Amino acid sequence: MNEHAHHGYTPQKAEYLRRLKLIEGQARGIARMVEEDKYCIDVLTQISAVTSALKAVSMGLLEDHLSHCVADAARKGGPEADEKLDEAMQAIRRLAK
Amino acid sequence: MNEHAHHGYTPQKAEYLRRLKLIEGQARGIARMVEEDKYCIDVLTQISAVTSALKAVSMGLLEDHLSHCVADAARKGGPEADEKLDEAMQAIRRLAK
Amino acid sequence: MNEHAHHGYTPQKAEYLRRLKLIEGQARGIARMVEEDKYCIDVLTQISAVTSALKAVSMGLLEDHLSHCVADAARKGGPEADEKLDEAMQAIRRLAK
Amino acid sequence: MNEHAHHGYTPQKAEYLRRLKLIEGQARGIARMVEEDKYCIDVLTQISAVTSALKAVSMGLLEDHLSHCVADAARKGGPEADEKLDEAMQAIRRLAK
Repeated sequence: MNEHAHHGYTPQKAEYLRRLKLIEGQARGIARMVEEDKYCIDVLTQISAVTSALKAVSMGLLEDHLSHCVADAARKGGPEADEKLDEAMQAIRRLAK
Repeated sequence: MNEHAHHGYTPQKAEYLRRLKLIEGQARGIARMVEEDKYCIDVLTQISAVTSALKAVSMGLLEDHLSHCVADAARKGGPEADEKLDEAMQAIRRLAK
Repeated sequence: MNEHAHHGYTPQKAEYLRRLKLIEGQARGIARMVEEDKYCIDVLTQISAVTSALKAVSMGLLEDHLSHCVADAARKGGPEADEKLDEAMQAIRRLAK
Repeated sequence: MNEHAHHGYTPQKAEYLRRLKLIEGQARGIARMVEEDKYCIDVLTQISAVTSALKAVSMGLLEDHLSHCVADAARKGGPEADEKLDEAMQAIRRLAK
């Protein structure tokens, strides 16, 4: 993939970046909580919040991917349509673990 | 909780900090992948890796918490034993979502 | 949907029925374990086995659905393509909970 | 474990049996939906409902187990306390998959 590739998520890129920056800050906050010996349950609550935020980003990216990349491949047909679907299913299986 | 509180995770604090720093770096890496227009499926794979790493940290913290804080409360008995268990169950329900 | 509708899973219908019959038998076995006062952890292990079996069936059905119904709608285009994708994403979100 | 063992879930046994019978009926209903060629998404929705019902039963059993069996072992102390906790953590890890 080259640096200027256009993907399903490109139109929402700024919004995804904003959310990923928040997630990065939350991850840093969790390290700080452990550093400062915060109560385990409060650390676990924060980890669950980050996990939920990551899942929300994943679902958005997946939807963008299915509606652009996978749908385009389906329209073209041929082996690439199957490959794109296999690849998406593998991602879905990882997300649903 | 004061700054010098001793928790179930305290003996492994350095190890948890090391893992949380890695997770923070992975989160930063995901933002960079989106910034550089990387392929959606590769971004999703990285998000799954961070989610797995967070789950592993959660399970470690939960085990430390059950074996120290919740077990201590069980030994003392009384309403605090029930409260600690309720609190731990709420954390487990969030983790199992 | 009429009784003779053809769906993505139709070619594997017998195989899905076989797996669902096994799952039904496992569910009955769990009720029997509780009836016979089996050890809680053994009951939990069996519930996890059924949950995994159900997830495997879900992933198979989802893959069949995406590769037939959703891909066909993508090829036809129009609002139905979007509707089919929205509907599939809602199912994926429920599976990933 | 003998047939008349008393477990954490014993006081709620009738309620668990009622819920597990419902789950067994739902599993049978899913097989019937596939038999009758129902729409894939509707089958997936029903599978998600059964999975949620199984998770609710698991969480109940786990809570009963932690508050009785694991807490009793914690009070007695010794290697059995550790074994019971390890066993419970393994169950939690399977539930959180």
